Amino acid sequence: MYNLLKGKRGLIFGALNDKSIAWKVAERASEEGATFVLTNTPVSMRLGNIDELAEKCHTIVIPADATKVQDLENLVTKGMERLGGKFDFVLHSIGMSPNVRKGRTYDDLDYNYLQQTLDISAISFHKILQVCRKFDAISDWGSVVALSYVAAQRTLYGYNDMADAKAMLESIARSFGYIYGREKRIRINTVSQSPTLTTAGSGILGFDNLVDFADRMSPLGNANAVECANYIITLFSDLTRKVTMQNLFHDGGYSNMGMSFRAMKIYTEGLEYRDVKVVKKDSN
Amino acid sequence: MYNLLKGKRGLIFGALNDKSIAWKVAERASEEGATFVLTNTPVSMRLGNIDELAEKCHTIVIPADATKVQDLENLVTKGMERLGGKFDFVLHSIGMSPNVRKGRTYDDLDYNYLQQTLDISAISFHKILQVCRKFDAISDWGSVVALSYVAAQRTLYGYNDMADAKAMLESIARSFGYIYGREKRIRINTVSQSPTLTTAGSGILGFDNLVDFADRMSPLGNANAVECANYIITLFSDLTRKVTMQNLFHDGGYSNMGMSFRAMKIYTEGLEYRDVKVVKKDSN
Amino acid sequence: MYNLLKGKRGLIFGALNDKSIAWKVAERASEEGATFVLTNTPVSMRLGNIDELAEKCHTIVIPADATKVQDLENLVTKGMERLGGKFDFVLHSIGMSPNVRKGRTYDDLDYNYLQQTLDISAISFHKILQVCRKFDAISDWGSVVALSYVAAQRTLYGYNDMADAKAMLESIARSFGYIYGREKRIRINTVSQSPTLTTAGSGILGFDNLVDFADRMSPLGNANAVECANYIITLFSDLTRKVTMQNLFHDGGYSNMGMSFRAMKIYTEGLEYRDVKVVKKDSN
Amino acid sequence: MYNLLKGKRGLIFGALNDKSIAWKVAERASEEGATFVLTNTPVSMRLGNIDELAEKCHTIVIPADATKVQDLENLVTKGMERLGGKFDFVLHSIGMSPNVRKGRTYDDLDYNYLQQTLDISAISFHKILQVCRKFDAISDWGSVVALSYVAAQRTLYGYNDMADAKAMLESIARSFGYIYGREKRIRINTVSQSPTLTTAGSGILGFDNLVDFADRMSPLGNANAVECANYIITLFSDLTRKVTMQNLFHDGGYSNMGMSFRAMKIYTEGLEYRDVKVVKKDSN
Repeated sequence: MYNLLKGKRGLIFGALNDKSIAWKVAERASEEGATFVLTNTPVSMRLGNIDELAEKCHTIVIPADATKVQDLENLVTKGMERLGGKFDFVLHSIGMSPNVRKGRTYDDLDYNYLQQTLDISAISFHKILQVCRKFDAISDWGSVVALSYVAAQRTLYGYNDMADAKAMLESIARSFGYIYGREKRIRINTVSQSPTLTTAGSGILGFDNLVDFADRMSPLGNANAVECANYIITLFSDLTRKVTMQNLFHDGGYSNMGMSFRAMKIYTEGLEYRDVKVVKKDSN
Repeated sequence: MYNLLKGKRGLIFGALNDKSIAWKVAERASEEGATFVLTNTPVSMRLGNIDELAEKCHTIVIPADATKVQDLENLVTKGMERLGGKFDFVLHSIGMSPNVRKGRTYDDLDYNYLQQTLDISAISFHKILQVCRKFDAISDWGSVVALSYVAAQRTLYGYNDMADAKAMLESIARSFGYIYGREKRIRINTVSQSPTLTTAGSGILGFDNLVDFADRMSPLGNANAVECANYIITLFSDLTRKVTMQNLFHDGGYSNMGMSFRAMKIYTEGLEYRDVKVVKKDSN
Repeated sequence: MYNLLKGKRGLIFGALNDKSIAWKVAERASEEGATFVLTNTPVSMRLGNIDELAEKCHTIVIPADATKVQDLENLVTKGMERLGGKFDFVLHSIGMSPNVRKGRTYDDLDYNYLQQTLDISAISFHKILQVCRKFDAISDWGSVVALSYVAAQRTLYGYNDMADAKAMLESIARSFGYIYGREKRIRINTVSQSPTLTTAGSGILGFDNLVDFADRMSPLGNANAVECANYIITLFSDLTRKVTMQNLFHDGGYSNMGMSFRAMKIYTEGLEYRDVKVVKKDSN
Repeated sequence: MYNLLKGKRGLIFGALNDKSIAWKVAERASEEGATFVLTNTPVSMRLGNIDELAEKCHTIVIPADATKVQDLENLVTKGMERLGGKFDFVLHSIGMSPNVRKGRTYDDLDYNYLQQTLDISAISFHKILQVCRKFDAISDWGSVVALSYVAAQRTLYGYNDMADAKAMLESIARSFGYIYGREKRIRINTVSQSPTLTTAGSGILGFDNLVDFADRMSPLGNANAVECANYIITLFSDLTRKVTMQNLFHDGGYSNMGMSFRAMKIYTEGLEYRDVKVVKKDSN
């Protein structure tokens, strides 16, 4: 509603359904005056309803498996054709761990699955950037964002090999940010978002309670998908041109909290409840 | 030019002259539809030409020494009166070290000067926030930004006790960000800016060469004052509501660089030059 | 028991009673073959029983208020006299906030108290180093350690202005570490210790439950005072000569945990308890 | 010489020749009273002279490719047999990038090579830990260290995909540190070492000048391989039991330096030399 992306062209990976952050970014980018193409894997296209989004945003979906260079080459070529020029912004919102899905714990990883986790969740980001670089597909002063999570810095039980993938993803943003920056003034950042109740997020063990904890720890509460989209719009705009190679926390303050009064209250009640239960047991 | 701050009211500390970041923020905030009051110490008002800025932005300057609670109380009261409501954004761009000015090295600090460095450059930020909190002077979902520098994380020769002040400043942003966030949804962040050739910056020993180094290290080059102002505008806008307690690097990528090819080239020439000079000396 | 500090001389600030980390460091340093002098303020000497420690370690206590340069000059001079040479290691374990003690919350700080918090908990470290530097009181390749806490990075409710003091303390370690390192090869680090049930720690609001939380978050559990002393002994030894300007977490892994299964269990029970109580209330 | 590792058993990966850090760790561990087995790939065993080291330390080399689970299972079984018990410490000092070797730049990576870089330099660490976990091969309160480099945090030109591998390595240390810590009290850390003139290090473009820069930036100068070994000995000892999931900089202070006077001097001369050359050119 500010015309922040007026005349800008984009490429958006990872919209599955209207819970997806990528979906919200597409909606907001459209409102801000951008044109873009959407993409996802054929499987995800069937599972979700990205076609609705495309229709709403007057654009098309170009299917692509982001782990396949050939698919990406096709996507980038067709995308530029469709939009009539290079991309000004790219969103990477892709992540999946077969180890998590199949219930393999971190001390019992399947190494083929690990390779897939890395390929899907981190290396795909490098492949997108490398293909774009080869096809000179991003405009000077363009902006690239990938979605990350605080697990890249701090271990959360159950997040498993996705933590390592996110750490690598953030490293790729730095490594490629240097090269793409010095040569084409393109900036590359990751946004480390609050735990979000997307279809991807809901696969994690005990995720609801973790979301509750994060919410009570964060002075502003968890950030939701629309808020995340708004923030990403600013990163795609011309007002943030010198921000690059950063991991930017968009999490209501969570990342820099040690302990809030609100979260400690619940924890304290948990300790008391434990005592109550012990007393009850003893008195039986 | 996007109306990002339409209808918003602000309070801007630290504009001295047209090299100041605060000056650029004022200009850009005005263009984006904000109204605000300016403030600086009486001494700075004489040294610079903040009155021109006020005129340009159709506002007034309310003199205040940000180390004096009473001055701040007067400023906040008068500022709200003038603007007809609470502040939606506050900029803190204040820093000064008498130890640096008087040439006291870090292992020969004058402790009265150190106290002044802290009071001016860090504690003033707490005082502003505490006074605003007491007068309920910032709107819900308001945004506060203070300017910082990478010296808060990494030691630079000659930056002296300003490093400690900046570390404390960033800590205050976190500490107060928690309280003000949970109670009033107000976000508080610091922006860690490239070395900038402002009047304040130019006091540092060998600053020009440091600026050159930072520029060659950064893939996007150093960020200038206008770019910094643009970035701060996004932080004052409604699009970044869930970003708080963060230190945000606005530096062309410098903070996450270990070594660039461009900077290493100059360094390597420095090593060669040294050899050349040694050879010359030897051959005399 | 390894003779790690054989022949080394030291200066230990902050031993109050046998719960103090500094007390444990003194005991362990003695066992490892070091000689040292102890120091504390006259008030603390009366409150605790440091004389017992001195006796046990065959040394003396030289009273000094670490915020007073003159006291420190006397201490350093007398200490070197007593030990017959320069110090090889120095421990700073000093911290106190009148704002915390008097129940002033962070948005209602008394600024005179804040100045005292900083002076006692952070600037004292600079004063010690500056006095040592002037009196050339630390041997080449000597080692200096100050105790810190994760509140320097992340906000904990109730920790108040001590967070800002610890952030500044860690900055002083970096700033002085550069100068003292390049000139005398002296290393300066901070150790960020688990919350510890010392006399100082127990002043913090809800500290017991916070200790419980940290313990369940940390894969190895909280580190206690003796373990901390052991770690500090390694930092005083000749085996860690190139570690400097670092903040070293000694916390059982806490600092890099996002969420553990054990801590989440209690938190979840707290959420359930809340529901139980609501149900009970409703059924009345 | 302190008997710090008396009675301890270990497993050391990555000794190639007497420039290797792993070589120095083996020598120092032996002096400190440990017994251990050495291992490397068959190729590395031929390239270097690890057999000499084994002889010197009265031990054997068990060949193993750390990317192969079967090799690791054999190694762990045979190693425990040889030593008569579980390992008390494990050193991972393994890294190699075919992309670097073959001169593929970061925007032209071969993805099969990338997979090898990750497998050799990062995933091998996970495999070692997972195999040890399955064979219950590490004693309670055991200590595991992997060698890392600051490129995991900050981009250095030419370091290429090794940066991403190191970022992932450090993440694995955290992720596995949580699980192995809570279950067996085993700690896992990475040591981020100064650039070191090992056979591995010397493959990096312009490495000598980078080493010079790091040396002049670091107040204590770069850390060498023996100093690194000394530091690792402390991490293997019983004095550091509560340090886990950390990345520990052993770099003479480099990581927390922004700019030193010494390094800036060379850089400034590089700028002057450039001017001299321009003047000369102009005057021709």
